[in-house]
Amino acid sequence: MKKDMYDLIIIGAGPAGMTAGIYAARQKIKVLLVTKDFGGQITRKAVTIKNYPGFKEIAGMELIKKFKDHLLSEESVEIKIGEVDKIEKEGDSFNVFLSGKENFSAKAVIIASGADPRPLEVPGEKDFIGKGVSYCSICDGPVFKGEDVAVIGGGNAGFESAVFLSSYANKIYILEFMPNLAADKANQEAVIKSGKAEIITNAALKEIKGGKFVESIVYEDRENGELKTLKVKAVFIEIGNQPATSFAKGLVDFNERDEIKVEFETYQTKTAGLFAVGDANTGPFKQIITACGEGAKAALAAYQYIVKLNSKR
Amino acid sequence: MKKDMYDLIIIGAGPAGMTAGIYAARQKIKVLLVTKDFGGQITRKAVTIKNYPGFKEIAGMELIKKFKDHLLSEESVEIKIGEVDKIEKEGDSFNVFLSGKENFSAKAVIIASGADPRPLEVPGEKDFIGKGVSYCSICDGPVFKGEDVAVIGGGNAGFESAVFLSSYANKIYILEFMPNLAADKANQEAVIKSGKAEIITNAALKEIKGGKFVESIVYEDRENGELKTLKVKAVFIEIGNQPATSFAKGLVDFNERDEIKVEFETYQTKTAGLFAVGDANTGPFKQIITACGEGAKAALAAYQYIVKLNSKR
Repeated sequence: MKKDMYDLIIIGAGPAGMTAGIYAARQKIKVLLVTKDFGGQITRKAVTIKNYPGFKEIAGMELIKKFKDHLLSEESVEIKIGEVDKIEKEGDSFNVFLSGKENFSAKAVIIASGADPRPLEVPGEKDFIGKGVSYCSICDGPVFKGEDVAVIGGGNAGFESAVFLSSYANKIYILEFMPNLAADKANQEAVIKSGKAEIITNAALKEIKGGKFVESIVYEDRENGELKTLKVKAVFIEIGNQPATSFAKGLVDFNERDEIKVEFETYQTKTAGLFAVGDANTGPFKQIITACGEGAKAALAAYQYIVKLNSKR
Repeated sequence: MKKDMYDLIIIGAGPAGMTAGIYAARQKIKVLLVTKDFGGQITRKAVTIKNYPGFKEIAGMELIKKFKDHLLSEESVEIKIGEVDKIEKEGDSFNVFLSGKENFSAKAVIIASGADPRPLEVPGEKDFIGKGVSYCSICDGPVFKGEDVAVIGGGNAGFESAVFLSSYANKIYILEFMPNLAADKANQEAVIKSGKAEIITNAALKEIKGGKFVESIVYEDRENGELKTLKVKAVFIEIGNQPATSFAKGLVDFNERDEIKVEFETYQTKTAGLFAVGDANTGPFKQIITACGEGAKAALAAYQYIVKLNSKR
């Protein structure tokens, strides 16, 4: 056995990874949790959370703090701040390589590495990052107090972003590519109630323009092909996520969105002992509570896997 | 459309059903939740909950109260106290029959009816219910202060029960049929730490004896076939659960434990529009947090199903 051999390595500390940690710790196995930060997407995006059962209304950061305190109260979880570059399987053990040459081994691995915001890939987007283009309304929204802004994406992320911006911005254009909105009715109503939003469906963003900072956006009205311009000081891009899963290449199967394919209820990938939960897998519903449920299940499945492995020796 | 037509009927108000209710309500659809009580098994069994992320330690009843308050804060959920006898599908709608002749219709149904404790089916068990035989240590444990008691079942339920009893009982025998214990290591350690428990594996309970109340139990030592007697005043039976799912007969497939078979991640049964979550389905891990995750997923899947159904009309 190597020096840094763990029973389980968990990659990521969003709701899924932290729940997996809490559950694994209760099994008194040796756990290493490797993560860039705590809270995953919630720290970058979420506003007020109203759908985590037990809390009628709680700030995203507050909920994450509760998760983190809960996790850290479990003694058998070791934390390592870092980014995973690669996983390899060698016999019955996994080697997890961090960027910067460190590596750790474990009998089982849970991938809970979450997802990063998906870029639009339109002209101007990259140039204006930090100059009006943002993937995080909660981080950057307050700067645009009294200004007109645009949110790209008519799903829950877009509408939650708009709800948040409505306390600051003067006017919020919400652009959705499809003819219909995917956001929860509750989120739609909240945005309409703010009186600040103009919702434009069938709109394909074509370009982000400006000088030193963003000044306008150009979109195509997909019903008639017309190009239209909106004067805005900021563009918040909320069109979904890209899972950060490439380090698992070779050990797992991906779908077309780079999400990892997993088995029913155990969340095991095609490689025995390797699991994927939350935004990293192909599951259709990406919620805090669903990520937590998956984290718990994978931790229990991983524990069973480890016990069986030990009994073979 | 009939008089009492809902978009969604949820059956049961444990963690899975209440989470489904919170999620469905946020979609602003018309929801009826039919239940016998709030909290499901937690109200009958659980002690202190340490593995629901966000709460390092919370009493079961307190967590249930928080879930219930959260659910009731959503306006579009109607509550009906009652027991479901039967579900039928008629065209695109479900008819849900309550014992006592009432019936309600909906476009979709989520079964979150939980499970009841499984009886041992040994001589004396039925006769001594309420006279020393119990399926709920939290309800009945305090009565046996200073006495010797037995817990049947070496899984988490048995050990959690033993932890609770350790504040009251003089001595706790834990009998497990199998050679190994299925309980979490954390639970095992907590029981051992109490210094009050004697753990007996490979033990098959044969009879519960007494006069007016329980006086002893007889078990077979499965290693050598010997019958042994333990003097106890109470027997807490913690050998698992029987899902209350028979009302869905004809519309769903069951496994050998009467659990309902469901699809990956949507929790839809073989009948379109009919979902099953939590203890009612075949999932291997039965935790509060996993039940909640499933409730959320099924509510979102049901919402998508209803939207598609409406768009067909």
